[in-house]
Amino acid sequence: MTGYADTRRVADLIEDLDQFTATPENGTTRLTYSAEYAAARDFIITHMLRAGLEVRQDAIGNIFGRLAGSNPDLAPVLVGSHLDSVPNGGRFDGPAGIIAGLETAYLFRDLRLTPERGLEVVAMIEEEGARFGGGLLGSRMLTGRVAPADLVELTDDHGVSMADAMEGYGLDPQKAVQAVLAPNAYHSFLELHIEQGPVLEDACQDVAIVDRIVGIAQLKVTIWGRAGHAGTTPMHARRDALTGAVAILSQLSGLPVQTSKEAVLTVGKLEVLPGGANVIPDLVNFTVDLRAPLAKDIDWMISCVRDIVGSACTGGLTGDVEEMLYAKPTMLSPDLHRCLTTNARALGLKYRTMVSGAGHDAMIISAVMPTGLIFVPSRDGISHAPEEWTDYAQLARGIDVIFTTIRDMTGA
Amino acid sequence: MTGYADTRRVADLIEDLDQFTATPENGTTRLTYSAEYAAARDFIITHMLRAGLEVRQDAIGNIFGRLAGSNPDLAPVLVGSHLDSVPNGGRFDGPAGIIAGLETAYLFRDLRLTPERGLEVVAMIEEEGARFGGGLLGSRMLTGRVAPADLVELTDDHGVSMADAMEGYGLDPQKAVQAVLAPNAYHSFLELHIEQGPVLEDACQDVAIVDRIVGIAQLKVTIWGRAGHAGTTPMHARRDALTGAVAILSQLSGLPVQTSKEAVLTVGKLEVLPGGANVIPDLVNFTVDLRAPLAKDIDWMISCVRDIVGSACTGGLTGDVEEMLYAKPTMLSPDLHRCLTTNARALGLKYRTMVSGAGHDAMIISAVMPTGLIFVPSRDGISHAPEEWTDYAQLARGIDVIFTTIRDMTGA
Repeated sequence: MTGYADTRRVADLIEDLDQFTATPENGTTRLTYSAEYAAARDFIITHMLRAGLEVRQDAIGNIFGRLAGSNPDLAPVLVGSHLDSVPNGGRFDGPAGIIAGLETAYLFRDLRLTPERGLEVVAMIEEEGARFGGGLLGSRMLTGRVAPADLVELTDDHGVSMADAMEGYGLDPQKAVQAVLAPNAYHSFLELHIEQGPVLEDACQDVAIVDRIVGIAQLKVTIWGRAGHAGTTPMHARRDALTGAVAILSQLSGLPVQTSKEAVLTVGKLEVLPGGANVIPDLVNFTVDLRAPLAKDIDWMISCVRDIVGSACTGGLTGDVEEMLYAKPTMLSPDLHRCLTTNARALGLKYRTMVSGAGHDAMIISAVMPTGLIFVPSRDGISHAPEEWTDYAQLARGIDVIFTTIRDMTGA
Repeated sequence: MTGYADTRRVADLIEDLDQFTATPENGTTRLTYSAEYAAARDFIITHMLRAGLEVRQDAIGNIFGRLAGSNPDLAPVLVGSHLDSVPNGGRFDGPAGIIAGLETAYLFRDLRLTPERGLEVVAMIEEEGARFGGGLLGSRMLTGRVAPADLVELTDDHGVSMADAMEGYGLDPQKAVQAVLAPNAYHSFLELHIEQGPVLEDACQDVAIVDRIVGIAQLKVTIWGRAGHAGTTPMHARRDALTGAVAILSQLSGLPVQTSKEAVLTVGKLEVLPGGANVIPDLVNFTVDLRAPLAKDIDWMISCVRDIVGSACTGGLTGDVEEMLYAKPTMLSPDLHRCLTTNARALGLKYRTMVSGAGHDAMIISAVMPTGLIFVPSRDGISHAPEEWTDYAQLARGIDVIFTTIRDMTGA
């Protein structure tokens, strides 16, 4: 097995970029359009220029670095990921994919490769939704999925709208729509991302080539009961919303295994009101996050949740299930899956096909161009935390798959 | 059946007093030492004087109104309750007992009764703990249960200590200890309170004569798991703290019925962290409020909770049960219970003996003098809410029991 990526250079890029954080001793905090974000952008631009790329910033702050191909009629390959982070997150989620693109450009320079088809590295804004909510905003704007009014309506925790934040960052929100990619502007999109789960590490594998991204539904379940004094209301006279909620919750975690081994269900947010230790709860609400590779399995789980809530709401309790989010599973490009798999094998790597349980920019961009996505291992499956980690050598092996695939695609 | 209390006067007292609230359109909010509290105090003093009582304010702001007896060697009977409220509470919780004392004094005046033993009406501070936490502070200070340093350490939501609030109210915190009652200062204490539960209403009864107050334990259960991404962590690889907590919670509500029909268990406060819809919870904590008339039943329920938590904490979860509060059941005076019962019967009322599921000033004061407590019905069992209600005629019937009992006790 022969590698291409320079592990030392990749490590330096990751570590240098990680200095642009609002929480230096406590993980990576780089919200879109923040001072740290601007500094990170300048760092990326410096390296794009050093790697010989022609740089442009689009109307919403996505950065593109282009290595032109010898044949201007061929649309370039796009490669990259997002530059923003969650609060107190890790240094790999997002940057790993941008640096995969940068390192690929450095390899083209170092190996003096002259591609027929161009290559373009992209660093996108606001994938996490950590500042303005919603998430995947950079890729959603590139693909025309965001209405202009949203820029005014989306606000951060301090009430600053995205439009105002853009102005503070030197962008004109009126021109945001110019960021939408022209049809056929690119040949395809490749993204490298950390797995954010334990599967590759547990299987001692180097890389996963993603064939699809799960469908996701998010439900909000609300149970209403009747409040009462914990000491003066006999057990038989209670309408305890939490008792009802527990009866529901105890039936939920068994649902996914009845559909497929990739299906998952998570209750991550739960609120009990009024929330006094000596008050019987009159309201409980909780989220149900449902994911599965097949739409029919998501639909089945949703209908099960509705049935379970309906059955539990007797004896004076009432319940409601609201569908907050529903996204069908996304198929990625089978051609790119084949190319990526072929190159992983040629590099002598241990690889597998995987369903992505998380949404990524690749999910959005796949609507407008053929898209491929690979994962590198996450230590202990941890992500969105300062402990997030991928060994630099493992990251370099993933970058080798990206590099060789782009080399093939660009005819370099 | 002949009544004594003047229902119209009782209604006016309740309604006039209820004007001293910080939330005029949204229930009674009268925090200790607030402007509303001071105005309510002045209102009570006005009526005490009008009823012919000699008024004093003690070192912490409790108000006493005395009708001296003809025999100064006989310690007086004390009757009353608390003047403070929870935020957005009702007009009866506390005031009903003070007005029972006031109306008793008015009846003594109107009927020109001359007691041999004195009678004293009391309006106490801070029973609810709504301002400084902890609760029962007025009666705890009267009985010497509060250390001087607590006055500095107890603070409200704005960081104002009880000592500072006392100064703002015109009291000298250095003298607070003077509020402690001298031994044998009173013959006995009587309190009328609303039931705050549905039992009297459901049974169509007028009054309950409390023989004991339940013991209370409050536990804090904490379950630790491992956080993870909701999409990328397979179900079998999870250590979901909420799944563990639900397994525990589903076994709790069945416990009290195994001890006695008065035993209750409530989980009123529950927190799930980190609390993101797409993050597997790594920490859940919740309160368990346990009450029963017998200490052995409380102890049994506590040990069950510990066993259940222990059994549920397998597969990478850890758990802890912390005992935050433990108060044994309180027996009230059998003699006063007999007097109150005799008078309820003589008045032709429908009455029952009841175990109080809530703590009251009577519980604290019973440590230093014979104490009796009666309940009047609460509509729908609702309390601590603007909808809290007791029909004035029902309240008047309860006051009749207090009045006739005090008449007997004072030899009037």
